[in-house]
Amino acid sequence: MAAKDIFKGIDQVDKILIRNGGENAIDKSFFYLSGVDGGLFEGSSIVVSRDRIKMFVYQLEEQTARASGKEVAVARSQAEMSELITKEIGKSSNVGVNMSSLTVNMFEVIKKILPNAKFVDVSKNIDNARMIKDPSEISKLREAARISSEIYEKSLDYLKEGIKETELAAYMVYQMMSNGASEPSFTTIVCFGENASEPHHSPNNRKLKKGDFVLTDYGAAFSRYCADTTRTALFGRATEKQKEIYDIVYKAQQGSMHMIRDGVNGKDVNHKSYEIIDATEYKGKLMHGVGHGIGLEVHDHPAFGNADFIIRKNMAVTVEPGIYIPGYGGVRIEDDVLVKEDGFELLTSAPPKELIEVN
Amino acid sequence: MAAKDIFKGIDQVDKILIRNGGENAIDKSFFYLSGVDGGLFEGSSIVVSRDRIKMFVYQLEEQTARASGKEVAVARSQAEMSELITKEIGKSSNVGVNMSSLTVNMFEVIKKILPNAKFVDVSKNIDNARMIKDPSEISKLREAARISSEIYEKSLDYLKEGIKETELAAYMVYQMMSNGASEPSFTTIVCFGENASEPHHSPNNRKLKKGDFVLTDYGAAFSRYCADTTRTALFGRATEKQKEIYDIVYKAQQGSMHMIRDGVNGKDVNHKSYEIIDATEYKGKLMHGVGHGIGLEVHDHPAFGNADFIIRKNMAVTVEPGIYIPGYGGVRIEDDVLVKEDGFELLTSAPPKELIEVN
Repeated sequence: MAAKDIFKGIDQVDKILIRNGGENAIDKSFFYLSGVDGGLFEGSSIVVSRDRIKMFVYQLEEQTARASGKEVAVARSQAEMSELITKEIGKSSNVGVNMSSLTVNMFEVIKKILPNAKFVDVSKNIDNARMIKDPSEISKLREAARISSEIYEKSLDYLKEGIKETELAAYMVYQMMSNGASEPSFTTIVCFGENASEPHHSPNNRKLKKGDFVLTDYGAAFSRYCADTTRTALFGRATEKQKEIYDIVYKAQQGSMHMIRDGVNGKDVNHKSYEIIDATEYKGKLMHGVGHGIGLEVHDHPAFGNADFIIRKNMAVTVEPGIYIPGYGGVRIEDDVLVKEDGFELLTSAPPKELIEVN
Repeated sequence: MAAKDIFKGIDQVDKILIRNGGENAIDKSFFYLSGVDGGLFEGSSIVVSRDRIKMFVYQLEEQTARASGKEVAVARSQAEMSELITKEIGKSSNVGVNMSSLTVNMFEVIKKILPNAKFVDVSKNIDNARMIKDPSEISKLREAARISSEIYEKSLDYLKEGIKETELAAYMVYQMMSNGASEPSFTTIVCFGENASEPHHSPNNRKLKKGDFVLTDYGAAFSRYCADTTRTALFGRATEKQKEIYDIVYKAQQGSMHMIRDGVNGKDVNHKSYEIIDATEYKGKLMHGVGHGIGLEVHDHPAFGNADFIIRKNMAVTVEPGIYIPGYGGVRIEDDVLVKEDGFELLTSAPPKELIEVN
């Protein structure tokens, strides 16, 4: 990330200040701009000027910060942190802040230490910059997706009657981390049978039995970049209805995904899955956006829905329609793709064309 | 959590509105107030009135929300979400919001849908309520700490020459999840040798060799409640210096921890470890707060430091001094305790009195 690129279209902004709060208010843009791999960086800041990017961290993360090769200033207290930032901002009158991540109270702190500054919300600029991936980000996304895809076969081999959802989740996380993930990119979702009807189900003690759907929604984090993939298999022999549901979701997923290329409207990609599913007896059984951006966050900007947004080259997005039937189960298929001029690169491995039966 | 308890001391507030943003702006208070176990609940809200608590969620998390037994309203769009909230807030003029978690942009959205409301920051009330744990929270914290402590011996058995930090981290996460954790409560820190000098080191390909410190800072999440424990062992035979450093950190940790009881000042607990370490040749080698609250967040309110705060019965906190020597290594020992009237209950298992040598 070249410092000057982020100022495109916001000429009036002199400097940009990103400030983290506690663990529930860490702005991932801090990592986007600093490239720092490890650490938490609670209470840390970064100031972006046109000619440089400088990090402001506490002593306990000094070594981690310096390993990034970026400029680093170290504070020993909150007061010193404020002083260092005030000095770096200097006489800049227009200061950009990320109001979609900054908390109201942290903004008050910033206003106090920079009483003469005028603040400009640069969240849209940051979203737009983060949306288009550079070569280094793309290689991290590829790696996160590779790690995730490679372990799927192992997770199918692990299935046996009576195992719990939580056991499969533990095993998948272990396989991802053994395969190079720094951690899971989000809490692994494992749904057996009727639990597959809950899109955000948390694994529990439900035991696997013959005839169950096995829906796994999981992903690896690699150098902070996320993968997010969903596969649905069947333990035992599938019924015609189970096969049919899979088939419809597969068609919807492929239909939406194959529309993806530079210039297409995300709304149309979203609509395609609804069109396919709502033309069947499962009308109304898809009730979430069909995809989202992916990057430093699993659910990164933008979200697919009914709003217009133009998909651009080098955006990374997921495509994940599903059919959910309360009390019965469900199917979701999700892949991560990198948008190309005239199509897309599939980052995750291709989903099975037909419902896999694991016997 | 009884709805009325949270209004203590803020009689002027009619209703409290907690609103989540995207995955980087989820307010853990949503889970504190709803008791919901699974799900993400991006964009969801909760409204607390004196006589009831009501959740506002999107369709994809309806089943997960209803499983909590709390009142639930389901929105099919952002517009409908706004309408439902506006209706629930009704003619209330003083609306409490959590400004230490709410983003500036989300606050603007709230102001727009409630143009006549006056907003009151209730973040301190929420912090104070969340700080004191009720019996159900205590049992979850005990369970998270038990899961974490039990796997430590296995992690020592796993040590052998040449394994990577990342492998040990993967193994520990697997053991925690197999032992009942829903996920790790934070990214597992594993440091071999000189890497132990970085408090927030991220595991990498560094291979274990004889004479290395093995510092592991890890914890389980159970029903969203966190454990956070650190142990330092030695692979091979320890030198006198390594034993001495461990001994000083152990004394500091026990010194701070044994001060803990209802009514003591957290500043004094923090000071105790500094006093012990700074009286040795390792003066200045501890440079972070000696502990913090623990609950729905790993780093929950409050943080131990130089500010006054009175420790109260049923608070849960960690105690974790360390000595860090760049290029050489370090030792940290961390336990989770529940504050009692006249002392504390150790939630994690007792740390070894002497540096364990693994041969």
